[in-house]
Amino acid sequence: MAAFDEATAVAAHPDGSTFDVTLDAGWTIGEDRPNGGYLLALLGRAALAAGRSAGAEQAHVIAASVQYVTSPTVGTAVVETELLRRGRSVSQVRARLVQGEQVAVQASFTLGNLDPASAPWWGEVPPVSLPPEEHCLPLPLPPGAGDGPSFRQQIDERFDPDTIGFVDGRPSGTGELRCWFRFADGRDVDTLSLLFVVDALPPATFDIVATGWVPTLDLSVYVRAVPAPGPVRVRFRTGVIHDDLADEVCEVWDSRGRLVAQSTQLVGIRIPQG
Amino acid sequence: MAAFDEATAVAAHPDGSTFDVTLDAGWTIGEDRPNGGYLLALLGRAALAAGRSAGAEQAHVIAASVQYVTSPTVGTAVVETELLRRGRSVSQVRARLVQGEQVAVQASFTLGNLDPASAPWWGEVPPVSLPPEEHCLPLPLPPGAGDGPSFRQQIDERFDPDTIGFVDGRPSGTGELRCWFRFADGRDVDTLSLLFVVDALPPATFDIVATGWVPTLDLSVYVRAVPAPGPVRVRFRTGVIHDDLADEVCEVWDSRGRLVAQSTQLVGIRIPQG
Repeated sequence: MAAFDEATAVAAHPDGSTFDVTLDAGWTIGEDRPNGGYLLALLGRAALAAGRSAGAEQAHVIAASVQYVTSPTVGTAVVETELLRRGRSVSQVRARLVQGEQVAVQASFTLGNLDPASAPWWGEVPPVSLPPEEHCLPLPLPPGAGDGPSFRQQIDERFDPDTIGFVDGRPSGTGELRCWFRFADGRDVDTLSLLFVVDALPPATFDIVATGWVPTLDLSVYVRAVPAPGPVRVRFRTGVIHDDLADEVCEVWDSRGRLVAQSTQLVGIRIPQG
Repeated sequence: MAAFDEATAVAAHPDGSTFDVTLDAGWTIGEDRPNGGYLLALLGRAALAAGRSAGAEQAHVIAASVQYVTSPTVGTAVVETELLRRGRSVSQVRARLVQGEQVAVQASFTLGNLDPASAPWWGEVPPVSLPPEEHCLPLPLPPGAGDGPSFRQQIDERFDPDTIGFVDGRPSGTGELRCWFRFADGRDVDTLSLLFVVDALPPATFDIVATGWVPTLDLSVYVRAVPAPGPVRVRFRTGVIHDDLADEVCEVWDSRGRLVAQSTQLVGIRIPQG
């Protein structure tokens, strides 16, 4: 079983709507705090299972909105779901991750069916231009950072060298990161793991200004197509920084150049004074 | 009292977290079905009141994510809220609109404080280019449509004539609508009513293809600044139409040209065959 599938496994209670989960130590962003996209994918898996158990016939998460309330720690937790609507073309499921008595993550999912063979009927977002994967670079870690956050061991991200000057204190100022993405163990990216991919890059604001932790306040993801096998391309862009808040847009294309996911998030950011 | 404030009034139960509301017949989109942005603003008002009642010190909704589950009808309903986190800079509130036993709308709000005098620290989205308000046109109604949806009586929207050819069966094909927006009774647009403004235009997809009703599956709004008095400018754009789904982005600028709101939504769309 691939690492991603093992780490996002959910075990249903007899009610079909509550799930035991184990937040995996291999998917943390700092100390023992799981990565936000990993948590979202885990909730998405529970939402799909809850839908199936209630007779919903949708196979994919097509939209997810999530609010991170408190940062859970590695270890056991519970996912509570609620089927809001079972529809013919789409169903809606609310899910929350609870650890102890505390709601850690609150999310809403729209379930639908995507046709792997389909193409856009109108509109196109041309894939981000990237140097060939072999000319792109893994994210360098600052001295003393050891191996970095554990979730980085699970992925093979190769960045356009022009976008990672921030690591040496030379952000480009354009507010954009670009990379190739694969899972380290060769697992293909599917619709569920796209919920993780859109949150697997450093903050796009790092390409503008060095700050501390940039917490996500609200994140929405639309999954637009079933990715073809192979690496995906990711572009992560900053919109506007205003009043200690920034919006960031992420887009993902598959190996055939089709847009497979879009996300937008509002983050908190503390600009250093002076 | 302005019509918007009257129609979005909420009456708190002694618990401070449950609210009686009346869905107003003057804000419908069809028959007796309230407009979705109107419902979101009403839930936002309840979320702010619930936050205040629990000691949260934030005055504005800065982010909202909403899923429309079933369409409620005009008349009485209840808003149930849950304070997920009371924080120093932001708080988080979940809210749902319940009519009878049915959850009609499910939303999550991030509350924060926006400084009316602030300017963006980085990034800019230049305001949409529009002919002067006096050269723009109210949305024409098709013959036999009477006065159209009742919520249109509450607003004074003046569209760039290039963007409303769809009314006569001549969509421009660019997938973009542009307009000036005011409330008909002269009420200024504030942060709360921006939640309504982002859903007060026809579907942007109408500028591409004539279809039936285009239901919103998932909508997220970020309120970025306190609007200055005067009309706001709105741009509503289609992204990609794929697999009977489309994404639409709405942006709103105030009379000083500052970006005051951004929204993105995923909608269902049935393309006519042939």
